[in-house]
Amino acid sequence: MSTLESSTALASWHDGLARNAVLEFVAAVTGTDGSEPVPVPERIAVFDNDGTLWCEQPMPIQLDFILRRLVEMAEADESLRARQPWKAAYERDYHWLGALMAEHYAGDDTNVRVLAGGILAAYAGISVEDFEASAGAFLHSAQHPTLGRGYLECAYAPMVELLAYLEANEFTNYIVSGGGRDFMRPISDEVYGIPRERVIGSTAVLHYTGNESGGTITHAPEPDYLDDGPEKPIRIWSRVGRRPLLAAGNSNGDIPMLQFSQHPDKPFLRLLVLHDDAAREFAYTTGAEQALEQATADRWTVVSVKDDWATVF
Amino acid sequence: MSTLESSTALASWHDGLARNAVLEFVAAVTGTDGSEPVPVPERIAVFDNDGTLWCEQPMPIQLDFILRRLVEMAEADESLRARQPWKAAYERDYHWLGALMAEHYAGDDTNVRVLAGGILAAYAGISVEDFEASAGAFLHSAQHPTLGRGYLECAYAPMVELLAYLEANEFTNYIVSGGGRDFMRPISDEVYGIPRERVIGSTAVLHYTGNESGGTITHAPEPDYLDDGPEKPIRIWSRVGRRPLLAAGNSNGDIPMLQFSQHPDKPFLRLLVLHDDAAREFAYTTGAEQALEQATADRWTVVSVKDDWATVF
Repeated sequence: MSTLESSTALASWHDGLARNAVLEFVAAVTGTDGSEPVPVPERIAVFDNDGTLWCEQPMPIQLDFILRRLVEMAEADESLRARQPWKAAYERDYHWLGALMAEHYAGDDTNVRVLAGGILAAYAGISVEDFEASAGAFLHSAQHPTLGRGYLECAYAPMVELLAYLEANEFTNYIVSGGGRDFMRPISDEVYGIPRERVIGSTAVLHYTGNESGGTITHAPEPDYLDDGPEKPIRIWSRVGRRPLLAAGNSNGDIPMLQFSQHPDKPFLRLLVLHDDAAREFAYTTGAEQALEQATADRWTVVSVKDDWATVF
Repeated sequence: MSTLESSTALASWHDGLARNAVLEFVAAVTGTDGSEPVPVPERIAVFDNDGTLWCEQPMPIQLDFILRRLVEMAEADESLRARQPWKAAYERDYHWLGALMAEHYAGDDTNVRVLAGGILAAYAGISVEDFEASAGAFLHSAQHPTLGRGYLECAYAPMVELLAYLEANEFTNYIVSGGGRDFMRPISDEVYGIPRERVIGSTAVLHYTGNESGGTITHAPEPDYLDDGPEKPIRIWSRVGRRPLLAAGNSNGDIPMLQFSQHPDKPFLRLLVLHDDAAREFAYTTGAEQALEQATADRWTVVSVKDDWATVF
């Protein structure tokens, strides 16, 4: 890519440290700055999803999906309305959910487990195809509660542009999310240009049952693994078999993944999205405190929504 | 692909039912027989490794690798020489190993667990990079005990040719093996043209430890999952997110994967390799009894080494 092309690349990013860091990194990887180019198969980039590629406020998009399912269940079965988490979902008790998140950040996951139990029960026995159809229908129709746009338009335009820029420079992009792998797969290609086989995320335990029409894979009511924190580098290794050159995240759960993208002998880039734009999106650092400290200590590139992005959506 | 090209394709296969089944299947997928072509991203093919892509007799190649490691450990630590499985490895007691396999086929895995315990202990604490370097060095140097060739020349030429033929027809090939994922990755591309991210296999539990130089992923002394039987379709779904169009295997552990490749509305092909050529390879059906029954019942395509392959290696 020529200097002229670089100067017009990433047009939805303001000129500044973050945009320059990306351009310099890509120039070093591709060798347009005179470096030895990194072989194409090694050009791996990994992206957290919630809060990094799309909006996660006022609640993660998948939580909205799950709450609607819990409401449906409570509507069909009165006895559930007295039990958490169905009670909170049915009564739209956002206080219970907010308190749960606050407890979680304070290290108390009692009610997170109550919610997780409900989530797992909500999909027990569903086939992976039916789950995906349900997630796809929701994502294609549901609206963000405050931004006045559909959820699929809540992807960050500068990050979508970055994904395309990396792909144009022969990178292979992966999503590495704490959210549900099979929740994101039906939309990852159309929203991000990332095909389903490059979505890494959390999942329930799956069961296979053989039959005469090709067998069925269904959700069991137990978690397999949560793709967060130290699990992220492990899942990257398991799926990709390489250490990424670029990792982008926005919260404490992304620290190990960003750390894991460090190389002794190749260019690498760690991006941490900072949500500091209450006018255009949301301003919050809860859940990102250690990540921001680590960014300073390890010289990660902080991407300010307010200062670095010319457009957000 | 034209009829002329088809007639010269798969030259290491004898003309016959198996070769014809492959050619007809590929013609249907690509639309050269007048069918509606299957979209390229859906052209997924999955292959078992041991006994399907390369030789697994007189013992799986990875078992040889492990036994050598157990011998090294017993040489370094005398106390291990009295304990199984180090004792059998150190004394080259193939009777113990043979009996273990016989017990396994009879449904008794007592000694399989003793061996597995040794295997897991053998690599506890090793980094994934060091494990891979060790596997790669072994595979590039070790000789098959009876065939008079290096292990990397024990891949079946007709299957390597089939992989290339599928790739030329825009299929995406995956290895789906009960063997170790990280054992195969260092050689999958050079031997099969399958890059490391498309190797699915068994693994130990991995641990991530952060540090200032990018963190390390190491083997823990416990199995994560064994990619065999019903786990194969689950791992295919988890990694690929699609039901394959073609599945190839050779043993009972491949039944669910072959079953899972059945489609109601698209061409599909199930291949079962039958080892019936004692002169050029090995003749055995132990561990494949139900698979052969299922092949007849479900009209899978049986690939006879003796009759269908013009060359074996």
